[in-house]
Amino acid sequence: MKIAVLTGGGDCPGLNAVIRAVVRRGEQQGLEIMGVREGWRGLMDPPLHDRLTRQATSGILHLGGTILGTSRTNPFKNPGGAEMVLRNLATLNVGGVVAIGGEDTLGVATKLHRMGVNVVGVPKTIDNDLSGTDLTFGFDTAVQIATDAIDRLHSTAESHNRVIVCEVMGRHAGWIAVHSGIAGGADVVLIPEKPVDIASVCEHIERRHRTRGVNFSIVVVAEGAKLGGGEAKAGARLDEFGHVRLGGIGQQVAELIEKATGFETRATVLGHIQRGGTPTAFDRVLGTRFGVHAADMVAQKEWGRMAALRGNQIVSVPLAEATAKLKTVDDAFYGVAEIFFG
Amino acid sequence: MKIAVLTGGGDCPGLNAVIRAVVRRGEQQGLEIMGVREGWRGLMDPPLHDRLTRQATSGILHLGGTILGTSRTNPFKNPGGAEMVLRNLATLNVGGVVAIGGEDTLGVATKLHRMGVNVVGVPKTIDNDLSGTDLTFGFDTAVQIATDAIDRLHSTAESHNRVIVCEVMGRHAGWIAVHSGIAGGADVVLIPEKPVDIASVCEHIERRHRTRGVNFSIVVVAEGAKLGGGEAKAGARLDEFGHVRLGGIGQQVAELIEKATGFETRATVLGHIQRGGTPTAFDRVLGTRFGVHAADMVAQKEWGRMAALRGNQIVSVPLAEATAKLKTVDDAFYGVAEIFFG
Amino acid sequence: MKIAVLTGGGDCPGLNAVIRAVVRRGEQQGLEIMGVREGWRGLMDPPLHDRLTRQATSGILHLGGTILGTSRTNPFKNPGGAEMVLRNLATLNVGGVVAIGGEDTLGVATKLHRMGVNVVGVPKTIDNDLSGTDLTFGFDTAVQIATDAIDRLHSTAESHNRVIVCEVMGRHAGWIAVHSGIAGGADVVLIPEKPVDIASVCEHIERRHRTRGVNFSIVVVAEGAKLGGGEAKAGARLDEFGHVRLGGIGQQVAELIEKATGFETRATVLGHIQRGGTPTAFDRVLGTRFGVHAADMVAQKEWGRMAALRGNQIVSVPLAEATAKLKTVDDAFYGVAEIFFG
Amino acid sequence: MKIAVLTGGGDCPGLNAVIRAVVRRGEQQGLEIMGVREGWRGLMDPPLHDRLTRQATSGILHLGGTILGTSRTNPFKNPGGAEMVLRNLATLNVGGVVAIGGEDTLGVATKLHRMGVNVVGVPKTIDNDLSGTDLTFGFDTAVQIATDAIDRLHSTAESHNRVIVCEVMGRHAGWIAVHSGIAGGADVVLIPEKPVDIASVCEHIERRHRTRGVNFSIVVVAEGAKLGGGEAKAGARLDEFGHVRLGGIGQQVAELIEKATGFETRATVLGHIQRGGTPTAFDRVLGTRFGVHAADMVAQKEWGRMAALRGNQIVSVPLAEATAKLKTVDDAFYGVAEIFFG
Repeated sequence: MKIAVLTGGGDCPGLNAVIRAVVRRGEQQGLEIMGVREGWRGLMDPPLHDRLTRQATSGILHLGGTILGTSRTNPFKNPGGAEMVLRNLATLNVGGVVAIGGEDTLGVATKLHRMGVNVVGVPKTIDNDLSGTDLTFGFDTAVQIATDAIDRLHSTAESHNRVIVCEVMGRHAGWIAVHSGIAGGADVVLIPEKPVDIASVCEHIERRHRTRGVNFSIVVVAEGAKLGGGEAKAGARLDEFGHVRLGGIGQQVAELIEKATGFETRATVLGHIQRGGTPTAFDRVLGTRFGVHAADMVAQKEWGRMAALRGNQIVSVPLAEATAKLKTVDDAFYGVAEIFFG
Repeated sequence: MKIAVLTGGGDCPGLNAVIRAVVRRGEQQGLEIMGVREGWRGLMDPPLHDRLTRQATSGILHLGGTILGTSRTNPFKNPGGAEMVLRNLATLNVGGVVAIGGEDTLGVATKLHRMGVNVVGVPKTIDNDLSGTDLTFGFDTAVQIATDAIDRLHSTAESHNRVIVCEVMGRHAGWIAVHSGIAGGADVVLIPEKPVDIASVCEHIERRHRTRGVNFSIVVVAEGAKLGGGEAKAGARLDEFGHVRLGGIGQQVAELIEKATGFETRATVLGHIQRGGTPTAFDRVLGTRFGVHAADMVAQKEWGRMAALRGNQIVSVPLAEATAKLKTVDDAFYGVAEIFFG
Repeated sequence: MKIAVLTGGGDCPGLNAVIRAVVRRGEQQGLEIMGVREGWRGLMDPPLHDRLTRQATSGILHLGGTILGTSRTNPFKNPGGAEMVLRNLATLNVGGVVAIGGEDTLGVATKLHRMGVNVVGVPKTIDNDLSGTDLTFGFDTAVQIATDAIDRLHSTAESHNRVIVCEVMGRHAGWIAVHSGIAGGADVVLIPEKPVDIASVCEHIERRHRTRGVNFSIVVVAEGAKLGGGEAKAGARLDEFGHVRLGGIGQQVAELIEKATGFETRATVLGHIQRGGTPTAFDRVLGTRFGVHAADMVAQKEWGRMAALRGNQIVSVPLAEATAKLKTVDDAFYGVAEIFFG
Repeated sequence: MKIAVLTGGGDCPGLNAVIRAVVRRGEQQGLEIMGVREGWRGLMDPPLHDRLTRQATSGILHLGGTILGTSRTNPFKNPGGAEMVLRNLATLNVGGVVAIGGEDTLGVATKLHRMGVNVVGVPKTIDNDLSGTDLTFGFDTAVQIATDAIDRLHSTAESHNRVIVCEVMGRHAGWIAVHSGIAGGADVVLIPEKPVDIASVCEHIERRHRTRGVNFSIVVVAEGAKLGGGEAKAGARLDEFGHVRLGGIGQQVAELIEKATGFETRATVLGHIQRGGTPTAFDRVLGTRFGVHAADMVAQKEWGRMAALRGNQIVSVPLAEATAKLKTVDDAFYGVAEIFFG
């Protein structure tokens, strides 16, 4: 059987580990693997693809990005797009598709599955906000990079008696912010799930500086964090992809803190360095296990399902489960971070 | 209530994260925390301890090692040792003990609990071979360090057409070897759970070099790996703690491969660099969550139990469960690594 | 003799290495060392200082920032400031000052020396733009951090077919940009010394994408880079310290490129992570050597001079030499980077 | 003109940066570049080579090892070897050779130059012991890796009250040991240039533990360090390439210290991880500058000379200068490390 593998949405450390694992395990299973370029766009017109072999995927395990390229193209948002995909799959004689992606990519996969396409999913989101799996690959790398940055910011904050605001990824869920905030010893963490009044943030920082004899603070802010009370229009400067542009929430929070407290405050926006580059060992292992499992699911014809981590096991769950509901930071977990505030 | 916290056994990245979290959460719960120095030895004669406060545990989250020091002292292996511990706990008016350690330390905790001591455990083993918890802290850091090393060895192996053997930790279980082997793209992984004939390893390497047009290989060997067939006496050079000394299994495997295949082969023994230094973000978060949970268990008087990771949740399990059975690498997980051999 | 040591200006990886070395070598020379807090401010009113001993400076070698704190306070810009410094030095019975800092701090040192103060300087600037020394400490760390970031941005740029603009430090000199641009394989590097027309940058990128079959580019921009032709008002958004705020030159360049070429373009501003955190081995060694030499200069009463690197040697040069002229990127060195453009 | 480029001897981070730079600058100069595989062996029988173009050397800047492969083959130690090289160069119509290597490789280059071959050299030794240049590339990476390891060993040494011996590279010169010893805050550094009595090392460690209230020490040992007084036969276990095998000097020193002082002592041998993997930014820049200069030397027909670093400049010096005399650690530099002992 010939299968197609594609990666969609934002790039994510570990994508190449998944691709390599699908190929290696797939070849063991007797599958022929076709690599589709630039996500779903590569199954539209003209189709973009290459044969993927063990040779072609050798030496990519530790590389960031995706050798297949990626795009945000959604066939269902293009007239006749889904039909084009169906036609190309038939013409190319593709018996199954392994779709590696997040909410959008897996949403397309779900719809195509309902139209009869044999699809298997692999969950990918650097933000870790997909349901159905304990964790997604790429997330650990992003948290590690953010934590390294916060470690570095600590010494500058202390030496200069400054408040430093570090904006990390997380448009709809604050997982990266809370994890890196805990790991980096942040004094405040702002996330989309917990809109706060900037005044209470400032009071907290002032109390910390007054009562604890320190004169620096680290504030970690998810890019999608919201300020209550109307002090700021977070999200007002979105680009065409819904990304907060520079001059976003981190910068706004820094300006508001400096104004309210008088403490010298600086913002750092980590941006794309969080999603590029070599994956952590954790993400390489998780990505590899997902890829192996996806190839096994193909061999078992477990269509319409997605590889998922449950405890120490890789299992498969319905595709729809992943995209049904955004997995956001729960109170219990945020509470762990709060213990260390201030 | 006054409680004591101690760390026993080999050091492990994340110990300070646990200590800090016990103190911060403990103080919130109204506990007074005493830091016992050098493991169980610090509760024997003379007792070694300090008051631990938020101030005293500030700035330690990212530090390797343990601010409390550690030892392998086992009160039950010293005449009158357990009685000394009981007496000191009474004299010092300690109402509960948080014991952070592995098989030995938690074994002592279990016995003391049966003698009426209020004990709560936190599982610690860099080797990840404790039952009752999905993962232990420190393990992720060790795997990351081993993977970084394997990444580096790859370029040397390729440039010099060499076989490179990398010996990693793991006396009884091959978790570090298998994880870092998967993450580093190893061509062979040898672990205690899977004794192999060195001849079959050599055949595998020769076939790889012959059929795949490559002339280098990476072999990851756990320090406790065993060779079948009597070719080598692994374990013959143990030190007093049961550690394989330099000149151990990695070196032996390298010599046997070079002799049998004629390929230039070199061994690298990672040793203590795997357990020292700053923890990964993952281990900082896991250690922090364990510490918070342990303080909560104390407040709830959940004696005789241990904090454990289950999926995304921190739960508590009976202390005895952790030490009942060594958690070794199962066939399914080893099978993932095997897919990529050669 | 009692001497005072202080750190002024922006923090810089390696400051603690210098402080520790001054103390260790100074004690060998029989000096008593006083640590002045927060730069020149600590010699004004009220004076801020502590005794520095070997014990107090133990374990700081690898730490970022400065244990003495720092400020940008200039006694000559405060009425009676210089007199206050002179009076405090006399009252505290300080026989010599080791001033670790950049243009401003050493400028103050030069003036005080002319007023009779025994001063020895240690050159510090993360931007590497001080004359009189081959290199300054901290610079290597900043270049390494910027290079790590550019490595990560590469995989994102490739996977998404994007142009990525990375803004690095360098207000007046482009050393960090050129070094990290060479080390990171940048396709364009914009620096203050070489104002360019944005149109020619865009043409270059378009030609690269058209003729070389690639569809990504990495543009490294020093924060003080200037655009010719009046297309942008770089520098228009400076803060009170002359820093370009977020929304600075990197963001502007990205917007101009996207507009002119139609290629999706994103900006990343590295900001303070370049100056915080643990120094590279190179900077620890250089800082240590500077500190040892400074203590020797004090013992030899080489006042009014500064430690400097010349080839492999640490020498001393007149303080005035360091601040006489900004050391900017010369054509020959920029030419090396240009070879690899596109 | 067609030129050949080759890399010889042990691999070294930065080799690919040099190769890439020779190609990029060479193509600008109108040269056609041939990549010789496996050092001088690739110019013997049968010759091994490929055309090197900009395309072929794209994306290699950050890679460890050498894309050309390397060997220790010396044509002058093979009957008729030199004649074979001359014949192949003539047949292949090669007008000049860029030889990147250390003492052996450049020694061959020097002899071939005397026989009329147009040769340009680039100095390479991870040990930094070549004369004629301030620094060699690869050295900075090795020092950084050793320093990272020493940082990690510190926390283990402290937590366990141990002496830890870290063996680093350096067969004939102790540069890596002294640099990483200074950067890592070592308490003792043993190098080939300074044979010491193990008894004095032990006394030093005992005094440190007795008088300073610490109970751990870090000892950095170059692999070529010699013990005086005949206590140990370092070098007795050399392999066929003159490398000290595991069980070498580090292990011996550890055993002697433990025996003499009674302090628990462990050895770690860093081995090949010091020379593999991605180069530091410093080495990428230095390698690139060397490569550019070598191509310029070819264009200028500066035969028989070698690129070299002098202060901030890349210059050319006679090839013979590099190999005339081993550059060893001088007393002044070792003295800097000694200040911090104990």
